[in-house]
Amino acid sequence: MSNFDLAEHPHRRYNPLTGEWVLVSPHRAKRPWQGQQEEVSRDNRPDYDPGCYLCPTNTRANGEQNPAYESTYVFDNDFGALQEGAPEGAFVKGELIRAESERGICRVICFSPRHDLTLADMEVGDIRKVVDLWQREYEELGRRDFINYVQIFENKGSVMGCSNPHPHGQIWAQSTVPVEPAKETTQQSLYFEKYQRSLLQDYLDLELKERERVVVENEHFAAVVPFWAVWPFETILISKRHYQHIGQMGDEEKTAFSQIIKNVTAAYDRVFGVSFPYSSGIHQSPTDGQDYPGWHFHMHFYPPLLRSASVKKFMVGYEMMANPQRDITPESAATMLKNLIG
Amino acid sequence: MSNFDLAEHPHRRYNPLTGEWVLVSPHRAKRPWQGQQEEVSRDNRPDYDPGCYLCPTNTRANGEQNPAYESTYVFDNDFGALQEGAPEGAFVKGELIRAESERGICRVICFSPRHDLTLADMEVGDIRKVVDLWQREYEELGRRDFINYVQIFENKGSVMGCSNPHPHGQIWAQSTVPVEPAKETTQQSLYFEKYQRSLLQDYLDLELKERERVVVENEHFAAVVPFWAVWPFETILISKRHYQHIGQMGDEEKTAFSQIIKNVTAAYDRVFGVSFPYSSGIHQSPTDGQDYPGWHFHMHFYPPLLRSASVKKFMVGYEMMANPQRDITPESAATMLKNLIG
Ligand SMILES: O=P(O)(O)O[C@H]1O[C@H](CO)[C@@H](O)[C@H](O)[C@H]1O
Ligand SMILES: O=P(O)(O)O[C@H]1O[C@H](CO)[C@@H](O)[C@H](O)[C@H]1O
Repeated sequence: MSNFDLAEHPHRRYNPLTGEWVLVSPHRAKRPWQGQQEEVSRDNRPDYDPGCYLCPTNTRANGEQNPAYESTYVFDNDFGALQEGAPEGAFVKGELIRAESERGICRVICFSPRHDLTLADMEVGDIRKVVDLWQREYEELGRRDFINYVQIFENKGSVMGCSNPHPHGQIWAQSTVPVEPAKETTQQSLYFEKYQRSLLQDYLDLELKERERVVVENEHFAAVVPFWAVWPFETILISKRHYQHIGQMGDEEKTAFSQIIKNVTAAYDRVFGVSFPYSSGIHQSPTDGQDYPGWHFHMHFYPPLLRSASVKKFMVGYEMMANPQRDITPESAATMLKNLIG
Repeated sequence: MSNFDLAEHPHRRYNPLTGEWVLVSPHRAKRPWQGQQEEVSRDNRPDYDPGCYLCPTNTRANGEQNPAYESTYVFDNDFGALQEGAPEGAFVKGELIRAESERGICRVICFSPRHDLTLADMEVGDIRKVVDLWQREYEELGRRDFINYVQIFENKGSVMGCSNPHPHGQIWAQSTVPVEPAKETTQQSLYFEKYQRSLLQDYLDLELKERERVVVENEHFAAVVPFWAVWPFETILISKRHYQHIGQMGDEEKTAFSQIIKNVTAAYDRVFGVSFPYSSGIHQSPTDGQDYPGWHFHMHFYPPLLRSASVKKFMVGYEMMANPQRDITPESAATMLKNLIG
């Protein structure tokens, strides 16, 4: 019999959502660290900052003034990576040099008028307003005929490239389906064709039976450190009911989704006693009018911190050239997070 | 006629080596930056540091003493992510929970006894010793029957997760072929089956005719900012002759390779007047004994700096959830680099 132990020995794990693998090196968390330390951001922000271009009533870089908004506020990104009016065209030389124009819309969503709050600090009722807005935006943007995919995401913390601490997220909506959701589309479709069931439904059933990687659940959602997690404290929020996108989420489900976002983000803040940086994003079906019976709504959280408030996991040389790699097991991360649910 | 312009309008570019796309937003470099600034490392290191575990004659964490080495020095990583003796085994529950043990060897390569030099500072003759060592290591590791892929790479600079400024690289050699080289294997094989020519050979011919993205070349190598570059100043070093791996590199080719590494890294240091951080890595055929006629030896450089010595490109929310995205065109990066070749 093999004495192979997931908690001890280097191994690879398969990510069925992307079809790719992650290298896990459980023993490696023991190595000493003499490298870069991140600045720890202490939360001493005012609730209103006259110099912040996202606070209510302040003026943005393009001269526009924000309204005196009282819950959420959404507007077109003044420096969007995508543009609605980009001319159509292509640039092609054989098979090896190929470019295509891409149209899209970039939106910024302020989660709250309060400069000093994050999703983790907000009341569930206020997070619910963000969820309502995500739903509305997904539907409205998705209805535009040149928008075939809508990416809702948040970069939290300066270590995640966030350039303004006022709590906000973004939406990039565009004509083509980007690389990551395209992988998930393929994998979920193949699984659905084979079993007539959603991949994440079956995965969630397994996890809810075993409970080892379940961080928290409520009637409509569960948060799990996926078996194939890449980032140290990565989680996935999966809807218990199988539907394709946020447009199909009912009233109670939206509240339950808000609740579990609060649970997970608040637990993150307790891991190292700091406002926990992360990038998060919602994955759901494209808005190209096709049917995607295999797509199952979910949200990813990718937080970079590994050892302490100031030491993150670097996804660099080996990871860029070869394969994602992690140093602690998903199971130990799940245990830590589970114990930090308020 | 379309007025679509690669230098002006958002577009996607195709990476034939991976089969994936990158989103390019040329207009976006104009946005203001209020986010995180990296610490700029000024080069005032001594040529020998008694506290450095990589300097000659010093003692490492595991109690071993480095020899008084005079050119390069290679040893097994004291905290390797892979282990030679990992027991074989698997952990499988249906299709959705799958892990497999992975065996491997992690090596550390000191480029020079001098604590204060980088590849950019070293003489071509001394870089040549590093290339010789890479060749020897690739051959020796590849010959081991449980090693089927050898990843040679370097993380340079603390922003790239490098935990010791003494110039060094790494080798992670393992039983399976990781995600990125697996993509390149597929793409290069498909192309070769179709045309009986190497993908990178044909690509290089195109670039050498156009010259727009060629940074520097010599008799045996060319350095190009690839049409599909993701990182701001990304380059690819391509051998002019089509061979699969470093084991097939001749004497003159090794010197030419050393020369172009010197050219490119020295140009990088001139971009913002600082020791330029990057992750680099060599991609070449697996060592599993199979024939890979389509594989074409090359080396990638992925440097993160974008606007200045202290502002890097963050690959975060949108990039992690959806698609890599860049803000300046590969053509403008190539022009800058070309003008900085010494
Ligand atoms: O091995 P090192 O230099 O200690 O570690 C560095 O390179 C490794 C390989 O890219 C990464 O996994 C680590 O996150 C990074 O800090
Ligand atoms: O749009 P922001 O917040 O200015 O920019 C941030 O998020 C973007 C989307 O993930 C990234 O492309 C940028 O590199 C990052 O700094």
